[in-house]
Amino acid sequence: MRLRMTVAYDGSGYAGWQRVATGVAVQEKIEEALKRIGGQPAPIEGASRTDRGVHASGMVAGLDWKHPRMRPMDLRRALNALLPFDLRILDVRRAPKGFHARFDAKRKLYLYRIQNAPVADPLRRGVCWHVPHALDLAAMRAAAAAFVGRHDFSAVAANPGYARASMVRTVRRCEIRKRRDEILFEVEGDGFLYKMVRTMVGTLVEIGGGRRAADSVAALLASRDRRRAGKTAPAHGLCLVKVFYR
Amino acid sequence: MRLRMTVAYDGSGYAGWQRVATGVAVQEKIEEALKRIGGQPAPIEGASRTDRGVHASGMVAGLDWKHPRMRPMDLRRALNALLPFDLRILDVRRAPKGFHARFDAKRKLYLYRIQNAPVADPLRRGVCWHVPHALDLAAMRAAAAAFVGRHDFSAVAANPGYARASMVRTVRRCEIRKRRDEILFEVEGDGFLYKMVRTMVGTLVEIGGGRRAADSVAALLASRDRRRAGKTAPAHGLCLVKVFYR
Repeated sequence: MRLRMTVAYDGSGYAGWQRVATGVAVQEKIEEALKRIGGQPAPIEGASRTDRGVHASGMVAGLDWKHPRMRPMDLRRALNALLPFDLRILDVRRAPKGFHARFDAKRKLYLYRIQNAPVADPLRRGVCWHVPHALDLAAMRAAAAAFVGRHDFSAVAANPGYARASMVRTVRRCEIRKRRDEILFEVEGDGFLYKMVRTMVGTLVEIGGGRRAADSVAALLASRDRRRAGKTAPAHGLCLVKVFYR
Repeated sequence: MRLRMTVAYDGSGYAGWQRVATGVAVQEKIEEALKRIGGQPAPIEGASRTDRGVHASGMVAGLDWKHPRMRPMDLRRALNALLPFDLRILDVRRAPKGFHARFDAKRKLYLYRIQNAPVADPLRRGVCWHVPHALDLAAMRAAAAAFVGRHDFSAVAANPGYARASMVRTVRRCEIRKRRDEILFEVEGDGFLYKMVRTMVGTLVEIGGGRRAADSVAALLASRDRRRAGKTAPAHGLCLVKVFYR
């Protein structure tokens, strides 16, 4: 039986989604729990790798499940009973035969939260990047729009060109909203390179602070030169919100 | 020079605002930092005690400051440089001579956050009480309205009558709002008894779950019997939002 899980986690305690040499991965924790429940290894595949410290409220994973008597909702309950509170299974449901969480994903939606206030709110210190200086929202909005479309995103990716894979991606939507003292950066696209969203955010914050021009994004992308982009924004402001399959 | 500070903290790491025998109090951490900056003890008084684990986004404290050359904003910076990230000084300003954070407080506003969803969100697990079962919002709203006014609140306070002090308080506003999967309980009053807000919330959640009647609050208050109220809601959902001085 093919299953599809929706997973939420506080990334601060994890080395990211995928198994790595150092630290505990989210995938590993879930696979351990599945093994305890099912009595045999049950590998899962995630829709996306998230980096160390990045959160998720809607990660999707696929798995083969060999215990047809256990209903998906019971598996959700059993997993949540075993998993730590910083990692929750929001949903488990049957998926079409051959469903693959990564290959079938059409688009992903990421949210980056910036708290723009003189002093950081202690209650949001784990989910927002605190930026104390004034930010020009209009300039950031104009710049964000320039990321939309099909581009080579090498200039805003870490290790561009490792493995010589294509650096071309399509960003469908890239928007900035203001909600009280927060600046919310939402980006939806068919795929993202390593650290791409965080480098976009770091660049936009430099634009908002007047340290680079609002109309500089097109030339930055055209350069394909990572050294010309802004600093990578910290991981804890980023959250994988949703994976779309249609 | 009399000063007034606004303080925010994540209560999860503290034994409450006030110095106690067990655990570290918020007040203590600030007084230690003040002593390091000023070179002599500088006691502060808070507008309110908050219980162990309760958060604040707008606690107010008063103090005498004997270093007139240091401007209030510099003191804020110096304190935040010494304090841990779960405790921040949002504002320091001059206060009228004789200002007292507790005695001069006219009203306080508390917010209690409930996440009402099948599975808890790991990113809000420190700031929301997770209630998985369905809640009747209309019943909870009707019941909340019955707390408004001048009442003897013994029935919803812990240790009522210890010290034989008056248990009469005035609740000015008591409202329930829905925001996505959260139920937000806001209560504003001239003063609150020990665990009063959390017992109100625990009672309202039992009403929302159909385990007690929506019109039962008036009789509950009239009984002055704590055993008739609901369970005390957990501390981590509660936040002192604002203290009013006029």
